[in-house]
Amino acid sequence: MHSPDIPDIVIHRLPLYLRTLTILEEQGQAITSSHELGAHLDISPAQIRKDLSYFGEFGKQGMGYEVGFLISQLKRILHLSHAWDVVLVGIGDLGRALASHSGLKRWHFRIVALFDKDPQVIGQSLGPLTVGDVADLHAVVSSRGIKLAIIAVPAEEAQGVADTLIEAGVRAILNYAPTPVNVPENVRLHSIDPVASLQSMAYYLNEE
Amino acid sequence: MHSPDIPDIVIHRLPLYLRTLTILEEQGQAITSSHELGAHLDISPAQIRKDLSYFGEFGKQGMGYEVGFLISQLKRILHLSHAWDVVLVGIGDLGRALASHSGLKRWHFRIVALFDKDPQVIGQSLGPLTVGDVADLHAVVSSRGIKLAIIAVPAEEAQGVADTLIEAGVRAILNYAPTPVNVPENVRLHSIDPVASLQSMAYYLNEE
Repeated sequence: MHSPDIPDIVIHRLPLYLRTLTILEEQGQAITSSHELGAHLDISPAQIRKDLSYFGEFGKQGMGYEVGFLISQLKRILHLSHAWDVVLVGIGDLGRALASHSGLKRWHFRIVALFDKDPQVIGQSLGPLTVGDVADLHAVVSSRGIKLAIIAVPAEEAQGVADTLIEAGVRAILNYAPTPVNVPENVRLHSIDPVASLQSMAYYLNEE
Repeated sequence: MHSPDIPDIVIHRLPLYLRTLTILEEQGQAITSSHELGAHLDISPAQIRKDLSYFGEFGKQGMGYEVGFLISQLKRILHLSHAWDVVLVGIGDLGRALASHSGLKRWHFRIVALFDKDPQVIGQSLGPLTVGDVADLHAVVSSRGIKLAIIAVPAEEAQGVADTLIEAGVRAILNYAPTPVNVPENVRLHSIDPVASLQSMAYYLNEE
C-alpha cells in the first residue's frame, strides 16, 4: 500500500496534521489552508503542501482544503479507518496511566490485553481487563494476531519483552521503558524518552 | 551561547548521540566512528558528521572520535554539565511513574517539587518530596527559579498549568497531558503523544 520512497519524517508529520484538522472540525470549520495549518503547527505552508502531495491532490490552488475530506484521506493513508488492537506490557504506575489514556481510546487504539510479571499484579482488574501473566504473552499475542504493543516495563526487562512480542508477531512497538531497545528492520519502534526531550530543551536555556 | 542558525532537528539528535556514546563508554570502548554511531542509531554517518560539525571539530579524518571527549563536549553543548531542577505537576499514575524515572535521576534532571490539585494527594510523600498544592505553584517555581517543568495533568487542566508555569518563569515544558498546549515563542515545548506515535507506525502495518 505505501511507497517506500516517502520519508519517515513525512509520515511522522501526518498525525500532527490530522490532530489539528480534527480540532478545526470540532470548532465547526469547513475549509482550511496550508497557511492556517502551518501557523498552528509551526511548520511552513510549503512543507505541508509538499508532504500532502506525496499522497495525492487534496486541495485546490487558492481554495484551500476541505477539512472533513482531508481528515478522511489522512485516516485512510495512515490506516486508521478501523480500530487497532494493542497489547500493553508492564502494569506499574506508567502502565496504569496508559491503560486509561483518553487519547488512545478516542483514536481507536484499543488496549485489549495487559501483562505483568509481578504475582501481586497478575489477576488484578483494570477496567474491563484482567492483568495476565507475562509467561502467556507470546501465546495471547500470537493467537489474537495483535500487531501493536506498548512496553512500560523496567529497563532491564524491556529487550526481553520486545523480543517475545516480535516473535509472537508484533510489528510496531511504542517503548516507554527508560532504555534503548533493538528491533529487526521489519519492525517499527518509537521510544518515549523524557531524558532526550529535556536534554534537547536544555540546549536553549542557558542564555538567560 | 547557541547559534540560532542550527536547526532544531540537529539539537534533537544530540541526545541520541550522547546516549549511544555513554553506552559505548560503559562497555569500555575508547574510540568510535560516525559509521558505528550511525549503525546504532539508524542515522547516516554523513548526517552525524554534519550535525557535529556545527559545534566544532571533534574527530580526526580516519581516526574517529574519542568517546569520553565527545561525551564531555556534547554535555557542554547541551548545558548538561550541571544538574537541572525540574517541577512536576500532576501526581496521578503517570506523575508517580515520572517522579521515580531512573533516567531522569541518572542524567541529573532533579525533580525538586511536586504539585497536584487533589486534596487527597496534596501532602502525600513521594520519596523525599511532599506533594504541594497547585495553588502554590507560581510562588514556588518563581522563588526557586525553576526553568524546567513536566506536566502530567488531565487534558482540560494542561493549558492553565502551562500558563502558570510560564508566568512563574519556566522556559521549557515536557507535556505528557493528552492535549496540545500553546506556549509563547520564547518557551520550549515537547509533547509526549502516544497517539501520534501509534498513528505514524500504523501507516507501515497494513501491507501484511
